[in-house]
Amino acid sequence: LHESELSSDAVERGEYRHYMQKEIFEQPKAVADTLESRLGPKGVLPNIFGIDSEALLGQVRQIHIVACGTSYHAGLVARYWLETHAGIAVSVEVASEFRYRDVVVPENTLLLAISQSGETADTLAAMRDSRRRGYLGTMVICNVAESSLVREADLKLMTRAGPEIGVASTKAFTTQLAALALLSLELARLRGMDQDVYLGLCAQLQHLPRAIEDSLKAEPQIQAIAEHIMHRQHALFLGRGEQYPVALEGSLKLKEVSYIHAEAYPAGELKHGPLALVDEHMPVIAVAPGGVLLDKLKSNLQEVRARGGELIVFADRTVNMDVQSARNLTVQIDGGGDFIAPAVFTVPLQLLAYHVAVLRGTDVDQPRNLAKSVTVE
Amino acid sequence: LHESELSSDAVERGEYRHYMQKEIFEQPKAVADTLESRLGPKGVLPNIFGIDSEALLGQVRQIHIVACGTSYHAGLVARYWLETHAGIAVSVEVASEFRYRDVVVPENTLLLAISQSGETADTLAAMRDSRRRGYLGTMVICNVAESSLVREADLKLMTRAGPEIGVASTKAFTTQLAALALLSLELARLRGMDQDVYLGLCAQLQHLPRAIEDSLKAEPQIQAIAEHIMHRQHALFLGRGEQYPVALEGSLKLKEVSYIHAEAYPAGELKHGPLALVDEHMPVIAVAPGGVLLDKLKSNLQEVRARGGELIVFADRTVNMDVQSARNLTVQIDGGGDFIAPAVFTVPLQLLAYHVAVLRGTDVDQPRNLAKSVTVE
Repeated sequence: LHESELSSDAVERGEYRHYMQKEIFEQPKAVADTLESRLGPKGVLPNIFGIDSEALLGQVRQIHIVACGTSYHAGLVARYWLETHAGIAVSVEVASEFRYRDVVVPENTLLLAISQSGETADTLAAMRDSRRRGYLGTMVICNVAESSLVREADLKLMTRAGPEIGVASTKAFTTQLAALALLSLELARLRGMDQDVYLGLCAQLQHLPRAIEDSLKAEPQIQAIAEHIMHRQHALFLGRGEQYPVALEGSLKLKEVSYIHAEAYPAGELKHGPLALVDEHMPVIAVAPGGVLLDKLKSNLQEVRARGGELIVFADRTVNMDVQSARNLTVQIDGGGDFIAPAVFTVPLQLLAYHVAVLRGTDVDQPRNLAKSVTVE
Repeated sequence: LHESELSSDAVERGEYRHYMQKEIFEQPKAVADTLESRLGPKGVLPNIFGIDSEALLGQVRQIHIVACGTSYHAGLVARYWLETHAGIAVSVEVASEFRYRDVVVPENTLLLAISQSGETADTLAAMRDSRRRGYLGTMVICNVAESSLVREADLKLMTRAGPEIGVASTKAFTTQLAALALLSLELARLRGMDQDVYLGLCAQLQHLPRAIEDSLKAEPQIQAIAEHIMHRQHALFLGRGEQYPVALEGSLKLKEVSYIHAEAYPAGELKHGPLALVDEHMPVIAVAPGGVLLDKLKSNLQEVRARGGELIVFADRTVNMDVQSARNLTVQIDGGGDFIAPAVFTVPLQLLAYHVAVLRGTDVDQPRNLAKSVTVE
């Protein structure tokens, strides 16, 4: 629609074989751009969500996030951040479900829409319907400034991913996470977060572009893993806590571009059903950052190993997963700290989906059956 | 533990080949037992959740449901009922996620645990932790009266499924739905639901055992479909609204007992990724009751058909799905009304999983890797 406005640099693949690969590697810059002039040494800068946004944000007690696909996964990560750091109760729902039911809206609830294009049909309809539902206000996180969602929302924060050509979203997702991290910090500050804790989280977020840059160095190792699993027809992704949505996003990428039937579960649900699927044909891919949930996750993975399942673990560099063997592969990633780890661990999973798809010879940038923006229901 | 107390009738398979099949066919009685002396011609009887429960329930403004596996799916159905009919904001979360994060608890929030055994480790821990989190109170829906969850909850409603031997839960699920329907109606009444609407929903619920009985008559047709898909390695289940959790539960059953990699999606998310998986090897199984979402679902299914996917539709008798052909099979079910339809449509999906498993020769009542109750983390 506005293609003529794109610089040739932005739409050419350059040294990369596919747009998806180019866009994965653009993430350090896209995230840095999204943080630029919004996050300073003393924290989140004023009015980045719009003039007088502070008055509205100060009243927010609950948030309903609506989104589709990859943007929905970004919302699920934000739920953990907003509840943990800002003490705000959050529900996250896919827009096509949200808009067709009688959602109960508690007092002082903000409706937050997330969409790369700003034209996602169900998300847009959800925001429009919300006018009659008694929300405190609406906010959008979006990548296209002239889009319908941005025009219609009370508050907005633009991601600065630049044009995304690959149908499978990559840099749109990580820049959404950066924007949602800014929102979480701003709300945490308004609700009286301890200043030292606040500055510590801001410093972590400031480091995110560098941390993503580092994670990209794992590409050769991930390429080897891709060769390892390229002939599989299934994969199970596991995560816990804020890494569960990362597992969901990793499985969606693999589905979209490689057509492998990948599915994600919160690791604690494994014994409640999906473990029945685990045998030597079902690789299990786990995201294992450090922190309190590590021991729980290790015990979940032990269940997988005991049943002959092949394990691929993306683990924080500080963690000893103790699973390296012919059927157990570990990729070590520097997560950069608990707060930003979900964004960092997303990147190797994007690379894995990309390289498996290349090996399988699919049309990586235009996967079958899918369109870039779902602007009809 | 209490096996000696079980009557021989309750633990013998009788005419049935497996406990799972027996328990599927026991559902009309199990649900009738669960409603017995709790639902009368004028509505839900007093104090069925415990003496003085009305005082506590009258204060409830929000509910956090925690559960695992199949019980989690029951909670997801209840969310639609409670928000639509009682105007109470509900969040539903798997217990292993809930207990390890800083959940924000708004004022007057009830913690509702759902568990067949009452000993599910993560659910029990979630309820115990909730004491320090500022909940208004706790409630449990459970099938075992002498269990830890029942002993420790403020309010309780017992399902009366009787002993469930098959590892894959069937009658426990539909009786949980019956109990959750009673809770939804009681809260709706306390919050001033129109009397005629209330009595209409009560009458629907009263009819549930009969409606389930009717749905069991589809078994021969479902057996034919089972033969049709028994060699597949994948399946995609679709639903919308309160039938989305039914699709989740149907896919979990198929996973558990047949080891087919089945996955459920809300139908509106199809274009946001999973449609890439759809080809002639991926049967798509949809739950299509009547109501406002039918046209939306039909258009989702059209996408599947256009891509060569095989469609199996469980449709309400009142609905013309117009998809009967060699690659499109429809099973007509009398859903018995919008309110109870999720419980009714569950039954044919249980039968499908059962018959596929029998054809594949798996150990139906003791699927590999799984235990009946997950009493360790």
